[in-house]
Amino acid sequence: MPAKLKTAVIGATGYSGSELARLLLHHPRVDTPLLLRRQSETNGEKSAGMPPSFAGNGCPTLQPFSWTALQQHETELLFLATPHEASRSLVPEALAGGLRVIDLSGAWRLKQAQHRAIYGFRDEDAVTAAELTEKAVYGLPELNGDRIPHAALVANPGCYATSVILALAPLLAAGIVDRKKGIISDSKSGVSGAGKEPNARTHFVSVADNLSAYSVFGHRHVGEILEQLDLNTSELIFTPHLLPIPRGILSTLYVHLNREMKPVEIESCFRGFYSGKRWVRVFATPQLPEIQFSLHTNYCDLGFCLAEDGRRLVLVSCVDNLLKGAAGQAVQNMNLMYGWKEEEGLQ
Amino acid sequence: MPAKLKTAVIGATGYSGSELARLLLHHPRVDTPLLLRRQSETNGEKSAGMPPSFAGNGCPTLQPFSWTALQQHETELLFLATPHEASRSLVPEALAGGLRVIDLSGAWRLKQAQHRAIYGFRDEDAVTAAELTEKAVYGLPELNGDRIPHAALVANPGCYATSVILALAPLLAAGIVDRKKGIISDSKSGVSGAGKEPNARTHFVSVADNLSAYSVFGHRHVGEILEQLDLNTSELIFTPHLLPIPRGILSTLYVHLNREMKPVEIESCFRGFYSGKRWVRVFATPQLPEIQFSLHTNYCDLGFCLAEDGRRLVLVSCVDNLLKGAAGQAVQNMNLMYGWKEEEGLQ
Amino acid sequence: MPAKLKTAVIGATGYSGSELARLLLHHPRVDTPLLLRRQSETNGEKSAGMPPSFAGNGCPTLQPFSWTALQQHETELLFLATPHEASRSLVPEALAGGLRVIDLSGAWRLKQAQHRAIYGFRDEDAVTAAELTEKAVYGLPELNGDRIPHAALVANPGCYATSVILALAPLLAAGIVDRKKGIISDSKSGVSGAGKEPNARTHFVSVADNLSAYSVFGHRHVGEILEQLDLNTSELIFTPHLLPIPRGILSTLYVHLNREMKPVEIESCFRGFYSGKRWVRVFATPQLPEIQFSLHTNYCDLGFCLAEDGRRLVLVSCVDNLLKGAAGQAVQNMNLMYGWKEEEGLQ
Amino acid sequence: MPAKLKTAVIGATGYSGSELARLLLHHPRVDTPLLLRRQSETNGEKSAGMPPSFAGNGCPTLQPFSWTALQQHETELLFLATPHEASRSLVPEALAGGLRVIDLSGAWRLKQAQHRAIYGFRDEDAVTAAELTEKAVYGLPELNGDRIPHAALVANPGCYATSVILALAPLLAAGIVDRKKGIISDSKSGVSGAGKEPNARTHFVSVADNLSAYSVFGHRHVGEILEQLDLNTSELIFTPHLLPIPRGILSTLYVHLNREMKPVEIESCFRGFYSGKRWVRVFATPQLPEIQFSLHTNYCDLGFCLAEDGRRLVLVSCVDNLLKGAAGQAVQNMNLMYGWKEEEGLQ
Repeated sequence: MPAKLKTAVIGATGYSGSELARLLLHHPRVDTPLLLRRQSETNGEKSAGMPPSFAGNGCPTLQPFSWTALQQHETELLFLATPHEASRSLVPEALAGGLRVIDLSGAWRLKQAQHRAIYGFRDEDAVTAAELTEKAVYGLPELNGDRIPHAALVANPGCYATSVILALAPLLAAGIVDRKKGIISDSKSGVSGAGKEPNARTHFVSVADNLSAYSVFGHRHVGEILEQLDLNTSELIFTPHLLPIPRGILSTLYVHLNREMKPVEIESCFRGFYSGKRWVRVFATPQLPEIQFSLHTNYCDLGFCLAEDGRRLVLVSCVDNLLKGAAGQAVQNMNLMYGWKEEEGLQ
Repeated sequence: MPAKLKTAVIGATGYSGSELARLLLHHPRVDTPLLLRRQSETNGEKSAGMPPSFAGNGCPTLQPFSWTALQQHETELLFLATPHEASRSLVPEALAGGLRVIDLSGAWRLKQAQHRAIYGFRDEDAVTAAELTEKAVYGLPELNGDRIPHAALVANPGCYATSVILALAPLLAAGIVDRKKGIISDSKSGVSGAGKEPNARTHFVSVADNLSAYSVFGHRHVGEILEQLDLNTSELIFTPHLLPIPRGILSTLYVHLNREMKPVEIESCFRGFYSGKRWVRVFATPQLPEIQFSLHTNYCDLGFCLAEDGRRLVLVSCVDNLLKGAAGQAVQNMNLMYGWKEEEGLQ
Repeated sequence: MPAKLKTAVIGATGYSGSELARLLLHHPRVDTPLLLRRQSETNGEKSAGMPPSFAGNGCPTLQPFSWTALQQHETELLFLATPHEASRSLVPEALAGGLRVIDLSGAWRLKQAQHRAIYGFRDEDAVTAAELTEKAVYGLPELNGDRIPHAALVANPGCYATSVILALAPLLAAGIVDRKKGIISDSKSGVSGAGKEPNARTHFVSVADNLSAYSVFGHRHVGEILEQLDLNTSELIFTPHLLPIPRGILSTLYVHLNREMKPVEIESCFRGFYSGKRWVRVFATPQLPEIQFSLHTNYCDLGFCLAEDGRRLVLVSCVDNLLKGAAGQAVQNMNLMYGWKEEEGLQ
Repeated sequence: MPAKLKTAVIGATGYSGSELARLLLHHPRVDTPLLLRRQSETNGEKSAGMPPSFAGNGCPTLQPFSWTALQQHETELLFLATPHEASRSLVPEALAGGLRVIDLSGAWRLKQAQHRAIYGFRDEDAVTAAELTEKAVYGLPELNGDRIPHAALVANPGCYATSVILALAPLLAAGIVDRKKGIISDSKSGVSGAGKEPNARTHFVSVADNLSAYSVFGHRHVGEILEQLDLNTSELIFTPHLLPIPRGILSTLYVHLNREMKPVEIESCFRGFYSGKRWVRVFATPQLPEIQFSLHTNYCDLGFCLAEDGRRLVLVSCVDNLLKGAAGQAVQNMNLMYGWKEEEGLQ
């Protein structure tokens, strides 16, 4: 039995961070992870501990953040469950110190400056940041499985983006999409996707018995979808909605095909593209995924309905935003980076 | 003070029926309504009473259905909150007996046989049914306000249809929609829209923490949307979803414009079309309606976002499916039929 | 028709405040109310407006708080939907200026210093505060209906307290409770009871799919329950719980009787006590109230089950915390203060 | 590595049954389980399959029930996730055929005829049934850990009963409860506890935004609580409530102590009693368990608050009704029956 991997999580008290801590604690090839607060929390700003659900499961005590703590732990792989500004500032030093990094924020996902603008990064011309942006691998294993194993810095995809990209990639790769007519993703997410910070939008009374659209034509995840799928801004409309549920994403996508097709051909297209991919499930039409089916799993579930005219396609894509949309995908990326089976620690 | 209107409700125990009973009980121009069970319930099949929330508010006892009861009550206006099959069989006799009828089911909404097929009506060639189909007025006051006052039979619109038609009508009337690119309505509804009958789909555990699409390319409300908006089947995709909330509908609609427009022009288009309409609220962009805002009201709330290219439009339309989507709209229709102010009994 | 009453609401943007504004806007004997922000909001701290659901219903614009605004409006009755500290500071000046006041906070509910301690009032020896404390009438119409009509200052009861006091009062008045064995109220409330301020406890993800007890042996409403029912601390245990619903309270109460009784006797006790009381509904055993039944109404619903031994009684009491538990009860108090029917504006 | 255990589940499509199937599929010492429909389903009555969430995880196809299928699978341990009537009829034949059985229904939990009456068993005098009733071990590992290892028939406890018994057992064992004053358990459960059968009570619209008490003084789980804790009927009131959440139980218990105690003594009492028990977590006062903390785990979480008088105790006990309250506890019992670590397959 080889030595277990030494990992650390910065930001282990957030929704994604604690889900990640839970997965790492039970991963057969990973040593008990070092769990660190965010820098801002360490400075006394906030002081939440690990959720009480962690008691009794061998969870280590949460530590304040410090580079020294990371060194003493002999950390090999660092997970960042931090805001994107924090990730921008932490990654250069971490990589310089020889760590490999999986960053769950949006800090390093985007290659094109036009998309990075929405994050307000002012350093895209800085040498280091530009280099790292170039070097970072977008950690969607089903698309970039060849580059992730060797990456020093993996930019773990956004939750919405995961559900949208995995639904569209097979069709775009097959060249059967009529892009000129425009692709639409009407996406709906549970509230944990909005983070743990309490505000008027995440107050229970604002969310319960409600549904609302937000950030129409202006959501941060649009950039990574466009880049990964090589689409122009005019070819995609992405509309996120806030669902009155704690977790889970369902995207309903609308695509025009450039030729008349049969349902069995669409199904083949998906099954072929995802053949051998452990964490994508293709549903046989007309059965459609629902949020419940993929909840608490690392699956992305995909299904579709084709209009009688054979040209208009409705796709449904579901992920658990904290697993395949965040922590689960981060573990899947780790598995690829260390040559382990893609499902280790995720069943 | 003129004599109050004599009304009756068949099917007063269902979700729409009891909401209607509540509105009629407090309507200043309506006498205490006669509340009747459905025929099937009268025959002993089921025997639910009025919900306990009605106690203490002067609600009359629920009666078994009979034509005699309707006559003795001297009923002038009959509301049908019954399944469409029941409405098909009750309406001819009711009209022959001199009653005016507002039917909340889908029985008389559709003029075109192709759309009626989904309801399985086998009598579309029967003389009476054909005549009544012709005679029935689609009870959407904002579109058919001129014909409703004189109608003997008003076909109250479907809840989804109300949210979709009111969102699209101003744009189509203005001739600014590029129909060839296709219109999409991604609609989400609370569970009361699925009726009171318990089944696997309406079980709490199936709905809570979940979202699911259903009846893609095959929902019954598509026909009325197409007919009222004079669209072809190929010009609209309508995808309903089941939300984990008791009531409320939000439709997100996607429209391509046939020329570049400014937000202010779109807003003018809506404000002009709905000028003087009491129960439509147009939101100033970029504010968007949410389900909570119209809940427990008779409003249809409309808002929009226009892409920077001025050609791609996202609309959001919200109604309370039991009020503007059913019982409230029925009362609004009654108000028109008897020459009262449109808001009587609805505030 | 006499002139309509001039009212004002300070704190009209909170949950209780906006519910109150909605009721006053539709009250047949009340002029359009003056809606004011809280002082702290007026000073720029926060700037929420009225909820979007108010649009289109003739709701006046929200004004910053000032005594001048109140005078210019010729305000006769002032509602305070403010934190208790604010109510403590506003009431003396308001009364001195000739206004009558209904205060929805806990500022003036308690006569006994031992109970006031929990609010941290440091001024109980101040002459004005002591005088006003003495003068204030606890605004539970079913108990204090004789004193409310003449009150200058009505202390509107707490939501939990309303549900508990109304359940116990008839039994205690009848002298059939074995107090030595202790009374228990296991109470559950929706989240709006915790106020509109976002915090970790009211975050959707903390509340949804959850239930939690809090403030065991230390909730602020215990004092008013004890005072109104003339109980000692040792005779009552009150345990509040936070329910994953927006509004509504259900209290389950456990009482030992000091003699063997029959269900019909218990029912008589309740029906007698609440005879002629418009806003209490007594359920016939074994039917029990549920939160849904009283939601969006001003009712307090009461029901019970008696053990076979005739000595152990389980009571269930439900109110809508924003209506009978706050704004509705405030309107009921106003109706009493001005000699109107108790149900005016509440149906 | 010894051969893996051959297990089967009858009733694998219900909520408890499918949760059990999921646990067995991932249990390191258990072979892929044989999953069988209930007899009634096998006869064509219903035909639900395994939930779609099982796809892709190596879940075997659901089989119709037959004794032959059980034999061919060489089943050693049979789990019954069947209604109690079915369990009554299946167990004698299963035991006669040499199988060991863990029954998740209420069929074999009760020794005393007075409590069995509520289940309507008419065979308590039948020799076999009487013998098996005697032989069955109540499968609460924390209390009966010495007898479960040798049991042929384990009666898996009810979900409510688990939460109540584990909260009270340490106090009763220590002899510090004043039983004459009566113990109260005010318990609240998610909807999956009511089973998968759709009915008016489990309809989403009936449950959402609601809370209701039911079966006051008459719930089936009372018998097992009384028997296991050796209490009289008059010493306990148990009131179940239906929560608007899919899963989880919180019981709030009220106990009078027969002498004045300190919080630290109560905590010691619990910690001592549950020392070495893997699946009970005792919270340090004043922290209290919440439903979320034990959700998706096999823990029973216990916490308490003691009144200042040192004599009145409020306990809070939480379990996931499908895990520690059903399937998880069944696996824990299996682990004991085969001499494995209590946590195998449950982390």
